[in-house]
Amino acid sequence: MIPHLTTALKGPLLALEKNILDNMPKIEHWFRVQWLEHSSPFYASVDLRNAGFKLAPVDTNLFPGGFNNLNPAFLSLCVQAATVAVEKICPEAHRLLLIPENHTRNTFYLRNVAALAHILRQAGLDVRIGSINPEITEPTQIEIEPGQTILLEPVKRVKNRLTLEGFDSCAVLLNNDLSGGIPDILKGVEQNLIPPLHAGWATRRKSEHFSAYNQVAEQFAAFLGIDEWLINPYFDTASGVDFQARVGEDEMAAKVETLLAKIQQKYQEYGVEQEPFLIVKADAGTYGMGIMTVKSPDDVRDLNRKQRNKMAVVKEGMEVNEVIIQEGVYTFETINDAVAEPVVYMMDHFVVGGFYRVHTGRAVDENLNAPGMHFVPLAFDTPCSTPDCADAPDTAKNRFYAYSVVARLALLAAAIELEENDPERL
Amino acid sequence: MIPHLTTALKGPLLALEKNILDNMPKIEHWFRVQWLEHSSPFYASVDLRNAGFKLAPVDTNLFPGGFNNLNPAFLSLCVQAATVAVEKICPEAHRLLLIPENHTRNTFYLRNVAALAHILRQAGLDVRIGSINPEITEPTQIEIEPGQTILLEPVKRVKNRLTLEGFDSCAVLLNNDLSGGIPDILKGVEQNLIPPLHAGWATRRKSEHFSAYNQVAEQFAAFLGIDEWLINPYFDTASGVDFQARVGEDEMAAKVETLLAKIQQKYQEYGVEQEPFLIVKADAGTYGMGIMTVKSPDDVRDLNRKQRNKMAVVKEGMEVNEVIIQEGVYTFETINDAVAEPVVYMMDHFVVGGFYRVHTGRAVDENLNAPGMHFVPLAFDTPCSTPDCADAPDTAKNRFYAYSVVARLALLAAAIELEENDPERL
Repeated sequence: MIPHLTTALKGPLLALEKNILDNMPKIEHWFRVQWLEHSSPFYASVDLRNAGFKLAPVDTNLFPGGFNNLNPAFLSLCVQAATVAVEKICPEAHRLLLIPENHTRNTFYLRNVAALAHILRQAGLDVRIGSINPEITEPTQIEIEPGQTILLEPVKRVKNRLTLEGFDSCAVLLNNDLSGGIPDILKGVEQNLIPPLHAGWATRRKSEHFSAYNQVAEQFAAFLGIDEWLINPYFDTASGVDFQARVGEDEMAAKVETLLAKIQQKYQEYGVEQEPFLIVKADAGTYGMGIMTVKSPDDVRDLNRKQRNKMAVVKEGMEVNEVIIQEGVYTFETINDAVAEPVVYMMDHFVVGGFYRVHTGRAVDENLNAPGMHFVPLAFDTPCSTPDCADAPDTAKNRFYAYSVVARLALLAAAIELEENDPERL
Repeated sequence: MIPHLTTALKGPLLALEKNILDNMPKIEHWFRVQWLEHSSPFYASVDLRNAGFKLAPVDTNLFPGGFNNLNPAFLSLCVQAATVAVEKICPEAHRLLLIPENHTRNTFYLRNVAALAHILRQAGLDVRIGSINPEITEPTQIEIEPGQTILLEPVKRVKNRLTLEGFDSCAVLLNNDLSGGIPDILKGVEQNLIPPLHAGWATRRKSEHFSAYNQVAEQFAAFLGIDEWLINPYFDTASGVDFQARVGEDEMAAKVETLLAKIQQKYQEYGVEQEPFLIVKADAGTYGMGIMTVKSPDDVRDLNRKQRNKMAVVKEGMEVNEVIIQEGVYTFETINDAVAEPVVYMMDHFVVGGFYRVHTGRAVDENLNAPGMHFVPLAFDTPCSTPDCADAPDTAKNRFYAYSVVARLALLAAAIELEENDPERL
């Protein structure tokens, strides 16, 4: 099942998808050469938006949740890719300590942890799950499905090693995005931390990711002979913002105006009749807090108290002073009138699957990954790596291939971003 | 669907399968360490025999046919593994020239070539098929299914490069096992030949493969704490044999006697009530010619003219002077009373699938890969990499995992064999 593309304007996307299909061997070669230069993150998920006239990534998660939403029929694909990832990063590893987020009451999230642990066990690792949540003081079984539990054990720091009772692992996999800063227990650890600490939101910035994506998209667009805008949302940043004290509003408003004008120009060029919009969000952090949709410069000036409160803090109470102002990309994929957004999952540099976030109560220009949101995941029903070049570009297999290409461009950007911000390199 | 294991004596195999399942992470770690030391062949298929009391490889093919018999549901697994293989061996390659066997009238074989080319195209290579059959003097379309054709083009040697009209490839993949010797056109080629020429039957010897397998099986058995014999067939060799002139019969008979006695001892140890048997086959070559089943020393002495003729030559008329005398492993897997033999397929060091050769007209101690044989392929219905450790060891998923372990042991032996016979190393 593939969502219906409801926009009247599909021409540019069909042309892009056809171009991508026609050049499949060249594109794969291009990626092969890139991966000789850059090391892929261990894993990632990329949120895409498909506007019919444009297909672009809007967020790249280096600590992906949602592995439980992937199609179980392609588990073997995840296992194989995980094997490659493990061989590259810790081939000697027997044991792996998996450190999840601290929210121990979110059953959906814990199902993801169980699914991820299952993949890694199938890839031949002895995996145990260690929590750094102070509430977990002893091994704790938590039910995630009727009859199925997950065991969280408290992580103990022994000198410079992270251990569990009777379990000293060669490597530590983080599924915790460090939105609340780097906890002391993770600092100065001698084991290999995967991904590295600088991939966490304590230091990571969305704007640095999209700066790297600018490089990648420009190179790829030149290589494919397309307008880079078709795969790349415009963005700008503002720093020194204080939503509560209403500091920085004028700067934001000016940037909003400039960006909207640039988008309007592109919309005219392609005959897009929708109204341009922007997403303003915290430059660090995730989970859909501190996000707003903006259609005019006034929208960042006239915030009421509730909106200011919402924008001022993200997950774990961190204050927002830096924002990214990103071109909004309309979501014109729908399933039974519900908006559907693709999320693509990768392990090492392989696309291992994906799913649609299907949400009924939300408009096409809103962010679906919002607090309290209840989406229904719809797993991709075919792999993203088996396009049928003889078929129409908008069949499921072929659309998923285009998604896999754009998602991998974002992955490549993440690889470059991590290299550029590596503290050992700086 | 998994064949029924018809032997009364399943104990040793169940114990072995359980041991393998229980030690899954350790086994995968063991393989990871091995693959740090050794380079996997590009691709391979391994014929296994499952006797209930013993599970062992009997043949390892480094130019596998039969890709068309794999489960299409796991195409993406092949594509991902092929991507890894290409990245390792020829990451810069855009174009790949695939050189198949010369039999252009075997539709079954040509379907394999088409399936293999499809996998490699999905992995992002520009693939064309070049024949070195002298009968192919111009681009030739051959129908392989109603409405589906395959294009064979004549290979042209241009200086030290193998080319097609308008196609100069970075790498050349051989799906031709060189049973008839190395054709001049392939000698001294400057492109990367995959697998290397010394993987072909012009130089390869089964006995060298099984000598390498002896090392691997011994190491693995010690690691797992099992009797090596459970996964390793005894063998010996005889050289200077001339079946037509009846030279070497006494030497063969003596070796047959010794081997049968060794097997009988093992059968007694494990309470196996069947009669031991041996397979005598050409030490070089394939395709089931020059093969016979032997149950007593007299069986190699009293060959009639027809049997001698059959043994004296293999594929492409090559004379047989060296034979391998290999312990026969009973085939006790059946589907509707038909004997079923598993064949496991690998690309790089990943198991990508497999199928059963199901053949009704043949006994449990005969070779199924015989000339003129008509087997029905039954694709494995689950991947081999997703065992369920909580389930019984003889469920399909778990049995396939045991198969994937033994097949990878043979693959590792092939890697060692190729290293030891590398002319650049010698």
